[in-house]
Amino acid sequence: MELVRLKLVTIVAEAILEKRLLEEVRRQGAKGYTLTDARGEGSRGLRTMDWEGKNIRLEVIVGEEVAERILRTLQENYFPYYAVIAFVENVEVVRGYKYV
Amino acid sequence: MELVRLKLVTIVAEAILEKRLLEEVRRQGAKGYTLTDARGEGSRGLRTMDWEGKNIRLEVIVGEEVAERILRTLQENYFPYYAVIAFVENVEVVRGYKYV
Amino acid sequence: MELVRLKLVTIVAEAILEKRLLEEVRRQGAKGYTLTDARGEGSRGLRTMDWEGKNIRLEVIVGEEVAERILRTLQENYFPYYAVIAFVENVEVVRGYKYV
Repeated sequence: MELVRLKLVTIVAEAILEKRLLEEVRRQGAKGYTLTDARGEGSRGLRTMDWEGKNIRLEVIVGEEVAERILRTLQENYFPYYAVIAFVENVEVVRGYKYV
Repeated sequence: MELVRLKLVTIVAEAILEKRLLEEVRRQGAKGYTLTDARGEGSRGLRTMDWEGKNIRLEVIVGEEVAERILRTLQENYFPYYAVIAFVENVEVVRGYKYV
Repeated sequence: MELVRLKLVTIVAEAILEKRLLEEVRRQGAKGYTLTDARGEGSRGLRTMDWEGKNIRLEVIVGEEVAERILRTLQENYFPYYAVIAFVENVEVVRGYKYV
């Protein structure tokens, strides 16, 4: 079976950011997403009060360039102001054309 | 500590497929699973109406051969008809014998 | 963008262990965590009755040494007695200093 190597970008953020982050990843090129509700705690941005609480865990599978764009947007517009973390993993998918 | 390298297969699908997919991964050789409720959106199979909605996120840790069998089954029997994505990652586990 | 390579440790366990496991990962050096509710099934430790049921899926991003300490603790104090699995993945993060 032919597997295509792509990037899985996982963003964990305050639940209040859900709508904005979905728009953001779409704008940067993600064709789909998976979203789960989560709880969490971590070191903080400015809005410290919201972080130890309701979070979302947002996953997108994208090409390397889109992954880079998403991370850059997070770094510039979210990390300084909100409780957000993001990490990237290598994944292999069937039907890679669906994601790029 | 001795870590064993295995495959983490993550399947995101319409919630209605939960029971069938659990039977499927067991039949292909998975010894256990983790299941979380999710929401999502993505490019579609035939049943377009169901996809922007309630999903499951199903994880199994398996050997390479079982991972391949699971992906093949999904490709033949699910991808053409349902809103399903699947991706594979390398993971390291303690007590690898539990998974194969 | 500068990405730092760290370890994502995922622990899936009986929900009853949530508080203890959070204390444990903090004690071993994790600076934050993400927690989602899950269901699951798998081969068992001693407390077989609890496993096919409510689980937590706990994620921490840590350096290699902390990952090793967490796995060792799980192996010594949890795996023999509870329904717990753990796996490790390589991840890349922005702002790596937040995690170590």
